[in-house]
Amino acid sequence: MSRSARGGSSAIPDVYLVGAGQSDYGAFPDESYRSLFRTAYEAAVESAGGVDPGDVDEAVLGTLGVGGRQLGLPGPAVTEHVGLHGVTCTRVENACAASGYALRQAVMAVKSGMADLVLAGGVEVMTDMSTEATKYWLGVSGETEWERLAGTTFSGVYAQMADAYLREYDVPREAMSHVAVKSHANGAKNPHAHLRFTCTVDDAESGTVVADPLTLYHCCPTSDGAAAVFVASEEVAQSYDDKVKITGVGAASDRVGLFQRDSYTSVPASKAAGDEAYEMAGISPGDLDFAEVHDCFSIAELLAYEDLGFCERGEAGDLALSGTTAIDGELPVNTSGGLKSKGHPIGATGAGQAVEAFKQLTGGAGERQLDDPQRGLTHNVGGSGGAAVVHVFEREDAEPAGSTDGAEGGE
Amino acid sequence: MSRSARGGSSAIPDVYLVGAGQSDYGAFPDESYRSLFRTAYEAAVESAGGVDPGDVDEAVLGTLGVGGRQLGLPGPAVTEHVGLHGVTCTRVENACAASGYALRQAVMAVKSGMADLVLAGGVEVMTDMSTEATKYWLGVSGETEWERLAGTTFSGVYAQMADAYLREYDVPREAMSHVAVKSHANGAKNPHAHLRFTCTVDDAESGTVVADPLTLYHCCPTSDGAAAVFVASEEVAQSYDDKVKITGVGAASDRVGLFQRDSYTSVPASKAAGDEAYEMAGISPGDLDFAEVHDCFSIAELLAYEDLGFCERGEAGDLALSGTTAIDGELPVNTSGGLKSKGHPIGATGAGQAVEAFKQLTGGAGERQLDDPQRGLTHNVGGSGGAAVVHVFEREDAEPAGSTDGAEGGE
Repeated sequence: MSRSARGGSSAIPDVYLVGAGQSDYGAFPDESYRSLFRTAYEAAVESAGGVDPGDVDEAVLGTLGVGGRQLGLPGPAVTEHVGLHGVTCTRVENACAASGYALRQAVMAVKSGMADLVLAGGVEVMTDMSTEATKYWLGVSGETEWERLAGTTFSGVYAQMADAYLREYDVPREAMSHVAVKSHANGAKNPHAHLRFTCTVDDAESGTVVADPLTLYHCCPTSDGAAAVFVASEEVAQSYDDKVKITGVGAASDRVGLFQRDSYTSVPASKAAGDEAYEMAGISPGDLDFAEVHDCFSIAELLAYEDLGFCERGEAGDLALSGTTAIDGELPVNTSGGLKSKGHPIGATGAGQAVEAFKQLTGGAGERQLDDPQRGLTHNVGGSGGAAVVHVFEREDAEPAGSTDGAEGGE
Repeated sequence: MSRSARGGSSAIPDVYLVGAGQSDYGAFPDESYRSLFRTAYEAAVESAGGVDPGDVDEAVLGTLGVGGRQLGLPGPAVTEHVGLHGVTCTRVENACAASGYALRQAVMAVKSGMADLVLAGGVEVMTDMSTEATKYWLGVSGETEWERLAGTTFSGVYAQMADAYLREYDVPREAMSHVAVKSHANGAKNPHAHLRFTCTVDDAESGTVVADPLTLYHCCPTSDGAAAVFVASEEVAQSYDDKVKITGVGAASDRVGLFQRDSYTSVPASKAAGDEAYEMAGISPGDLDFAEVHDCFSIAELLAYEDLGFCERGEAGDLALSGTTAIDGELPVNTSGGLKSKGHPIGATGAGQAVEAFKQLTGGAGERQLDDPQRGLTHNVGGSGGAAVVHVFEREDAEPAGSTDGAEGGE
């Protein structure tokens, strides 16, 4: 328990990331969910310049179910494994947004005064399964009765969104392919990425059709991996060298089944989560210097551009084609490679996005380091939009919102 | 988002329950996880004297997996179903303590200033399955590699604890049977209870052996059910008639497998969670007027007496045999009937305990109403002790701690 919980009423603290790390994302038949999480934990500890396990008040683990290995109590199973004996660990799940919500819960734990230092992370093991089992594990996050049991896969759901979007706004499929090319170009520079190769628009366009209009290059891989971050109160953060302030948090839910929603060409939960995060942070989309968005399929990145206010409705294709969201553009998106190239170990994805934000804002992004970014956003979606969570991160010495050269836009 | 999240720094608020309700617990082949949760939600709304859905900032759902019906995103699936469209819902899971942790997360959400009114609840569907499937769903919360896959069931794990405890402290098995008789006596007065019959010590002693020394009467049933509570900031709580203050919260984890722990005769996570909750509430066990403890097996209630400081180590049998924890004793335990008689729909259990605390402290416990209780505790355990969470509740006008006639004890 933190000092403030013991000491009675005090002010709600500001919250910081003080360390962040991840395992490689990929196919690792010799790893377990515990060993992967340990790798991420140790990387986060190292990035924080060392963390005394006795200082950790709490942990939150996001996972869809560690590939069925430990369906109940995976939280304590991983924290005990990394040496945080006795530290309470809560598992949270909102499908592919599990660890985005774990991070949000860690923020709440610190702001509540009930914890001063919280480990938030996620892990998934997905490749050591038959194709049928993997389909099941992914499918369970779709609406069960009328999507999964009727045979609809996630590729099918997002293909319906893509088809509707491309038709409604008369956008060429090449726009999705440009997103894929950009993701791979960035991921090729990320030593932790699953698919570290570049590709061309022709490759993407001529790829095997998974679910029309999506080709293989428009779909993220199935990955194993883990990611972890340390969230601290302002007071505790002073003990750490690198600090990134979490200034905005937003989250929203929606009907789980795509067929239950009014539109196939936007994700209302993303828009609501983004609006809430911007309001809390006191910024607008134009104040961002980069974003990590949830591109499980390339169409999802286009929809995110619009739902998060990077451009107007129907203009995401132009934004992608113009290079604005490339690593050398005005608003780089998915410098990590995104889910498409970095990989998508379901429970790890949201925390992994926060790892990239931490690295970019502390100058640790290596070959894909942006030039002096002040402020970034992460956006993590569950299922086809049944849940979405957005965080805004700022450098401690960030210039005030409105003064930076972010992208223009917003509805 | 709450006003305080928008408005910047302010004081960490006190937190209240303002409504609480549950479905019946039992075997309901015609109900779904959604319909059960709706029943609990509507009961909670009614108990609060009405809640405007637009006032609900957030929801947290505890479930082990709604019986496999919606493994991913069950949170939004139930909140959308009850009409809380768009309200963010996070699913939390710590096995049988899922909704105890959901309540804790709701407390943090309010204390963080990011929400003013939060729905916390839980649901499970368990009876509409084959025995093998039920064994699987329960088993997944045990340690996987060396307990579940080696054939150990939860009855087996708790039987090992019972055997070790009865031997170590030379306690007669009748002590467990007295606990079972008490649970059934209380549960028979609870219109929502699953097993509403009374039994005798002879019945319990001569029951079918499930796992020696546990007979059928020492084991809780497999139940369907749901429970829900509303958690509010002090300011928002003023709009509601009935308010119960949540003064203490504690949680701890431990190794998931019983065989990984040093002792079979205590649950260290329960002790740590209890100590933390007492410290936060500024009370000692002697200040309690009642408790709802996690009695998935009757041995678990005996261990809880000791881990929560109701008596010294080895004295739980005497406490049970003396009638101290009977409904007319000094420290009534499980007035609801407990998991044993009220039932144990895994994900609903923790929130259901809070429902009983709310009812007892607001005079709504009907035939099992205690005489003017001021302060009570709930204790919810995941697995065989891999996680535990404890809450302390007080009436708004509670006499100061130390002045009431609670039980003596503590280590």
